[in-house]
Amino acid sequence: MDFIEELRTLKEQLMFEHKFNVPKTTKNVVIAGMGGSGIVGKIFTELYSSLPVYLVDDYSAPDFVSKETVYIAISYSGNTEETVSSLQEAIRKGANTVAITSGGKLLDMSHQRVVIPKGLQPRSALGYMLTPLLKSFGAVQQHEFKEAYDLLSRIDANHHEEEQIAHDIYVSEKVPVIYGVPPYKAVAYRWKTQFNENSKILAYSGSLPEINHNDTMALKGTYRRDEFYFIALTDGRNNTVERRIGITENITGIKFRRIKVEGKSALARVMAAVHIGDYITYHLAKLRGKDPLDVGVIEELKERLQESTGTQ
Amino acid sequence: MDFIEELRTLKEQLMFEHKFNVPKTTKNVVIAGMGGSGIVGKIFTELYSSLPVYLVDDYSAPDFVSKETVYIAISYSGNTEETVSSLQEAIRKGANTVAITSGGKLLDMSHQRVVIPKGLQPRSALGYMLTPLLKSFGAVQQHEFKEAYDLLSRIDANHHEEEQIAHDIYVSEKVPVIYGVPPYKAVAYRWKTQFNENSKILAYSGSLPEINHNDTMALKGTYRRDEFYFIALTDGRNNTVERRIGITENITGIKFRRIKVEGKSALARVMAAVHIGDYITYHLAKLRGKDPLDVGVIEELKERLQESTGTQ
Repeated sequence: MDFIEELRTLKEQLMFEHKFNVPKTTKNVVIAGMGGSGIVGKIFTELYSSLPVYLVDDYSAPDFVSKETVYIAISYSGNTEETVSSLQEAIRKGANTVAITSGGKLLDMSHQRVVIPKGLQPRSALGYMLTPLLKSFGAVQQHEFKEAYDLLSRIDANHHEEEQIAHDIYVSEKVPVIYGVPPYKAVAYRWKTQFNENSKILAYSGSLPEINHNDTMALKGTYRRDEFYFIALTDGRNNTVERRIGITENITGIKFRRIKVEGKSALARVMAAVHIGDYITYHLAKLRGKDPLDVGVIEELKERLQESTGTQ
Repeated sequence: MDFIEELRTLKEQLMFEHKFNVPKTTKNVVIAGMGGSGIVGKIFTELYSSLPVYLVDDYSAPDFVSKETVYIAISYSGNTEETVSSLQEAIRKGANTVAITSGGKLLDMSHQRVVIPKGLQPRSALGYMLTPLLKSFGAVQQHEFKEAYDLLSRIDANHHEEEQIAHDIYVSEKVPVIYGVPPYKAVAYRWKTQFNENSKILAYSGSLPEINHNDTMALKGTYRRDEFYFIALTDGRNNTVERRIGITENITGIKFRRIKVEGKSALARVMAAVHIGDYITYHLAKLRGKDPLDVGVIEELKERLQESTGTQ
């Protein structure tokens, strides 16, 4: 599959029906994952907060983990060393464990597992990893998946605006900075990582209103301001935050490229926001003559790390 | 007080003895706060995980909040609109509420309160806001405060290396990117915000090993790479992560400015790491001819926001 074919599978991934069991006695949830698998937990917490969800992005497991914890390890390959180590610690603490993976070590470690299809880049399998969480916790309603499917289909059919944004970034060689309004804070981070992995450029993200307490101070007086491409990712539904964006532009003289996602349900809007970023970063890779599928540097790092561990 | 006098109070702030009561029935903790007050919760979660701690940096409160939740609203002024709104929602949900503030609206809203001294910039009052959390939850031992005090005193007495780093950034006009190793992920973000507010320059942060799954891909092939000043904030204690830093440098050709904090206890190291960033950003402000105390743009934004709300 080439990269654009992978992107086009996202809508079908939302129809994935595998679930795991969440005991009624559950007091808290931990989701461990890195990179393209880690983003799944971040997006989930923007759509669900009926239980406290704690995210782990390193080798450890938090102290509070107990048999009342549902501990979900997400790794597309099933072999991410940080996530495997974190799950091992959770098992020792007696957690109720779940693995979401296409294979690897994780498969045989946990109480429950959701096995997802192989053959994609981890970052292209977001739907397969997110959907079991949403369905198992009852975070969204069935009709929202259908709406998200339709919205993603429309983006698959027409991504001219995304291509135009990629072109603007390409000719200016600017560094994208994506500011997400809730519930798009995690999506802003997803875009950052997609710029990194697909387009092979640096990018950064933040959230609104948080940046009004720090970045905003720099936006006026900093050097190198014109070397960044500032994006505000929003749905226009929160008047207070919309006013904040306008006033921030006014005071600092910065003009955000505003991306306003449409859609009735939060799931549809969040998935559309993800997909817009997928296509921008895909087009930018093409314009830059880079293969969006290639993550050779990350693979090399993993291999070198394993070698150096082996020889210790 | 000028800014350097404010910085010198940090060590005394650790001796602040006010606490609040955490009921034995507590199942989870929420800490709401923005900017310089919000960083407090982020740092706390790196030092404490005996209960799940959930952070809020906007107007809302998560759905799981109940009478078994300790809901801590932190705002130095006591009037931060996001935090006030979030606390109001938590009160409606029946949470056990605590305010940490020097005054303002928060004072009269919560079940318990910790009143901290007025007269500092919020970002300079980190110790006053963090210490009650650490002591109320029993997160660190008494001797750790003493060690942290001594370490901060040493940095107060000698910050030549910090001045040198500020000078390097100043002459190159680079944009700092700080990557923190656990437990310095929140400190990396603190540095970013201090670069924004004190030095008035853009800055970004991330964490290791997470960046090995995304940024690393960009570090090799990106444009504008030489316009960033990459810092790795670590204590040298985790061999795996140290190897990661070395291999990342090797593969990408990037050289991190490594800041290695020393100290026996995690609290002392974390506070030292904070303070090193305080001084770097202070010196950079001075070199740039900027007043580190000035946050006029943020104040103007708040005023304009209140005006526009008032006229609606």
